[in-house]
Amino acid sequence: MNADKAPPSTAASDPRGRVRPLLRTRQVREFTDEPIQDDVIDAMLEVARWSGSSRNEQPWRFVVIRDAATIARLAAAGMPQTRLLHTAPAAIAIVLPDEPDRAVSRAFDDGRVAERLLIAAGMLDIAAGIAWIRGDVRPAIREALGLPDGWLVRTIVGLGHPTAAARTPKSAPGEARRPLEELVHRERWSG
Amino acid sequence: MNADKAPPSTAASDPRGRVRPLLRTRQVREFTDEPIQDDVIDAMLEVARWSGSSRNEQPWRFVVIRDAATIARLAAAGMPQTRLLHTAPAAIAIVLPDEPDRAVSRAFDDGRVAERLLIAAGMLDIAAGIAWIRGDVRPAIREALGLPDGWLVRTIVGLGHPTAAARTPKSAPGEARRPLEELVHRERWSG
Repeated sequence: MNADKAPPSTAASDPRGRVRPLLRTRQVREFTDEPIQDDVIDAMLEVARWSGSSRNEQPWRFVVIRDAATIARLAAAGMPQTRLLHTAPAAIAIVLPDEPDRAVSRAFDDGRVAERLLIAAGMLDIAAGIAWIRGDVRPAIREALGLPDGWLVRTIVGLGHPTAAARTPKSAPGEARRPLEELVHRERWSG
Repeated sequence: MNADKAPPSTAASDPRGRVRPLLRTRQVREFTDEPIQDDVIDAMLEVARWSGSSRNEQPWRFVVIRDAATIARLAAAGMPQTRLLHTAPAAIAIVLPDEPDRAVSRAFDDGRVAERLLIAAGMLDIAAGIAWIRGDVRPAIREALGLPDGWLVRTIVGLGHPTAAARTPKSAPGEARRPLEELVHRERWSG
């Protein structure tokens, strides 16, 4: 038996097959000019809404941006991290309370919802990429989005349809991640 | 037409149906004593391995814990946040570099991988809950897991099969999350 050549299975008895949508989550940073349909945006927002958060506080708000001039302004403000927004026909800014003493906990929740949006994009046959907003860029982003005091944006998720180049994996299968034996310990670090 | 009574659809034209696995992600905090199969743990670890991270640094390591005495020690160390570990037959500790000047970025990556593990648990018909390890508890956790200097655990994901009580939603449908109109702005905050 050659496990490498086994056909993909989605049977209930095949755990790896069941989590396949999570194994193929990829970030995309270059999009075509094809727009995103309204019902796809709505599904993304439902996924965002149902994200879990510390004590179910749901600290986030979301700004959906489809206006090309606003997206261009966001893209220009935070280079190079915001480069992917240049070609995105839509974006979702994740807005969180600006509380320095809870920054780590808020960043954890930010990561949870951002990851859900990436996974949802894959399920919806669109693509997404995370633009990280550096601290020095946040005032310009706040201004562009009209945020009130006390809120900040650390993450903007760009959405679109991937270009052919963006669809092409940049590394050979198996090379994009460390092997499990390098990442995993059993029972104890030394184990 | 009564939209409330429409049967669920998974057609490609139904975006909300396609993201359904993400809408039903739930945390569970009480598990039966049924163990988790090895191939299910392996699938969880593949999901963890394929998580995205800042600059693909893959900063994490994972400690898989199935020894009841070790899990009991972790559960006792961080009460009340670690209570859910008391009944978990397995757990995955997310280990990250202890870099105070990158704590926010690392917490974002921590949230991304933790959320993926919750979603994977749902796809695998098991259940998971996130135990947050407070700063004052981390030395005890490091000791229990034999972590070397320079690493910390902020999150332990407990895994198991949910009890009947844990399966029962604690709130009526639609009440567990804020409505979209409270969370979403269009184009600008004021929009």
